[in-house]
Amino acid sequence: MTDYSMGKLRGNCVLAQSGGPTTVINCSIAGAIQEAFRYQEIEGIYGAINGILGVLYEELIDIRAEDPKTINGLVSTPSSALGSCRRKLSEEDYDRILDVFRSHNIRYFFYNGGNDSMDTADKIAKLAKKSGYEMRVMGIPKTIDNDLAFTDHCPGFGSVARHNAIFLRDAAKDNESLYTSDTVKVVEVMGRDTGWIAAATALARESDEDGPHLIYVPERPTSKEKLLADVEREYKKRGRVVIAVSEGMVDEHGEPISASTSSVDVDGFGHKQYGGAGDTVCEFIKEGLKIKARSNKAGTSQRAAVDRASVVDQQEAYMVGQMAVRNAVQGQTGYMVTLVREDGPEYRCTTGLAPLADVANAVKYLPDEFINNEGNYVTPAFIDYAKPLVGGFLHPYIRFEKNYIEKKLPTFKG
Amino acid sequence: MTDYSMGKLRGNCVLAQSGGPTTVINCSIAGAIQEAFRYQEIEGIYGAINGILGVLYEELIDIRAEDPKTINGLVSTPSSALGSCRRKLSEEDYDRILDVFRSHNIRYFFYNGGNDSMDTADKIAKLAKKSGYEMRVMGIPKTIDNDLAFTDHCPGFGSVARHNAIFLRDAAKDNESLYTSDTVKVVEVMGRDTGWIAAATALARESDEDGPHLIYVPERPTSKEKLLADVEREYKKRGRVVIAVSEGMVDEHGEPISASTSSVDVDGFGHKQYGGAGDTVCEFIKEGLKIKARSNKAGTSQRAAVDRASVVDQQEAYMVGQMAVRNAVQGQTGYMVTLVREDGPEYRCTTGLAPLADVANAVKYLPDEFINNEGNYVTPAFIDYAKPLVGGFLHPYIRFEKNYIEKKLPTFKG
Repeated sequence: MTDYSMGKLRGNCVLAQSGGPTTVINCSIAGAIQEAFRYQEIEGIYGAINGILGVLYEELIDIRAEDPKTINGLVSTPSSALGSCRRKLSEEDYDRILDVFRSHNIRYFFYNGGNDSMDTADKIAKLAKKSGYEMRVMGIPKTIDNDLAFTDHCPGFGSVARHNAIFLRDAAKDNESLYTSDTVKVVEVMGRDTGWIAAATALARESDEDGPHLIYVPERPTSKEKLLADVEREYKKRGRVVIAVSEGMVDEHGEPISASTSSVDVDGFGHKQYGGAGDTVCEFIKEGLKIKARSNKAGTSQRAAVDRASVVDQQEAYMVGQMAVRNAVQGQTGYMVTLVREDGPEYRCTTGLAPLADVANAVKYLPDEFINNEGNYVTPAFIDYAKPLVGGFLHPYIRFEKNYIEKKLPTFKG
Repeated sequence: MTDYSMGKLRGNCVLAQSGGPTTVINCSIAGAIQEAFRYQEIEGIYGAINGILGVLYEELIDIRAEDPKTINGLVSTPSSALGSCRRKLSEEDYDRILDVFRSHNIRYFFYNGGNDSMDTADKIAKLAKKSGYEMRVMGIPKTIDNDLAFTDHCPGFGSVARHNAIFLRDAAKDNESLYTSDTVKVVEVMGRDTGWIAAATALARESDEDGPHLIYVPERPTSKEKLLADVEREYKKRGRVVIAVSEGMVDEHGEPISASTSSVDVDGFGHKQYGGAGDTVCEFIKEGLKIKARSNKAGTSQRAAVDRASVVDQQEAYMVGQMAVRNAVQGQTGYMVTLVREDGPEYRCTTGLAPLADVANAVKYLPDEFINNEGNYVTPAFIDYAKPLVGGFLHPYIRFEKNYIEKKLPTFKG
């Protein structure tokens, strides 16, 4: 048991998860829970069911009553074990949240999510302070999108990167053997506003034959004409093309090439749901170049594939959960835990803290030095950045060396 | 070295792979190659590049010149290592094939593929016989679709089943945590004419909370009205629904609900390429029930995911390759190797033989006893059939037991 003479605050804590799940989001909750077990200051450990909705509706579960095996099993169970939500909160909602916290003597609130969740956490922290209710609020970062600022990268990204590198490598291997009939393969990955995930598919490529041959990210608007010219050039090189596209790929006017038009495709924050960029690219290619194109889209499975998780990502996700609790018990509030990459020849990350409000209001796009001049692939600097995050890669696939037998007949004209 | 006094035929052999690749198709080629190494009768071991096209164009590689490590690496490399094709052969093509075989003293031809490939192999065997050219032709079964008759199941199926059970389980886990905003999840899997692959996603389900809750297969035409009634009923039960659909799902008129209309979407055999059934089901649900629905589609990645391969499938794929060569050397010709499930408490398969022509002209649909009366799920008999084929499943995912804390405030009306 740790005992701090300064800034001691005793009471119950609430953990909640929000937004799109990740493969490792439960590692963070496991880290937070197992760290919370260490402190006398933390009495009840409660989980809010379905994110902030669980607080609003007082749907709080007793984590101490769970089987320790369940807590241990969190690290190998993808997707938010406490449930999640996407809800834009009103002023009354915030008042209600504080009422719930007061009535249950909640002195610690740990919110595991992305930008929107950090904004929510920030507002709760400020309202508590204004109301004179002493509590500590900490953000635990989570997003496959890797678009949170003030952190080297986000827990969840390494695993989705590893999944998609595998998923694209397999699609490319299929394309390689069947290119005489399946000529272009498009792999659509998540990433509404940023291209981090699409960029990471480049980790699948070790030789020119491997895919992806082209990568399109929202940071680089691409006209249909440019796309077709790129594809035609790559097609002439090897008779087939493997392409990775972000779901949020945009045209030359900055419009998503395949924004859904259906009104129900809008989440609680008013964000439009995309999805279909891959199919749209296929249609462009079929119409424009008269060659076959098909798309693969792992969709939500890409952010829940625990058998393809990055070990580095799992460990870091656990660590940020731990550090959120440790820092709060030590007196910090209003921060999100960040990952800080250390200098040195070996990859290593420690943690830091960034104010919730700063994180809430920033988006980290792929920087220019990670995108090639043509705007259709990544740079070696991106590979250097991303490679350590996927925690080791798979066994190599073989290719025949192909020593051809001498031909004996006239060339076939069929 | 095995030496048979009867029916000895000495010469070169050609191996070829055809049609859509699988995760384990190279296991079959590895089995055939390593078995061929054992016989004096087999001199040159050649691989035809891109299926029968490699024979037509005399693009034959010398397998004996390959590094043994490459041969061993075949078992963990997905997708046809020799390349594949989809080509409908003309009469002149068949004459050319025989000319190539004669000129290279090819006495053994092993064709690794599905129905169409067995038809091709059968015609080659018959033409050789008619022409008085002594050669032995054997089929090595391969199809993720599991629709070849005369065999208990097809190499390739167990692995795609295992991939899709994992892929759907992860999608369902995501849906479970985010159902307050992502209500319906549709997973589209391969299967143009038969529902074996969609059916196998039921292996992901161990409790009522797990998906899939509904499965639609081409064997059971389903109207939009029936679909919406099913989805609404399941939605009322748990506030969310996970659905698996075959790409070849058909409406009440027997028409694919999402046949592609683009003319380039037709393969060499004139088969239309489907894909989009999942998106179509989502559109139906969004329009008809006004609830959110999103689809995942692994596409070609589902048949190349070697990290999710079934060990049973890998071993059986190797075995059918071995047995094709062994049977041919022993004097058989005109057969496809089949898998024969032995009776007994433990799962075990041996091999048998079926005439190529019989296999070529038959399609094995999901039998009635494997589909429920409602036509929207599988029966326990199907699970008994399919479970041993995926070669063991993954570690269990945890769920919190959820002991709720007593509420202290009036119910929230927000």
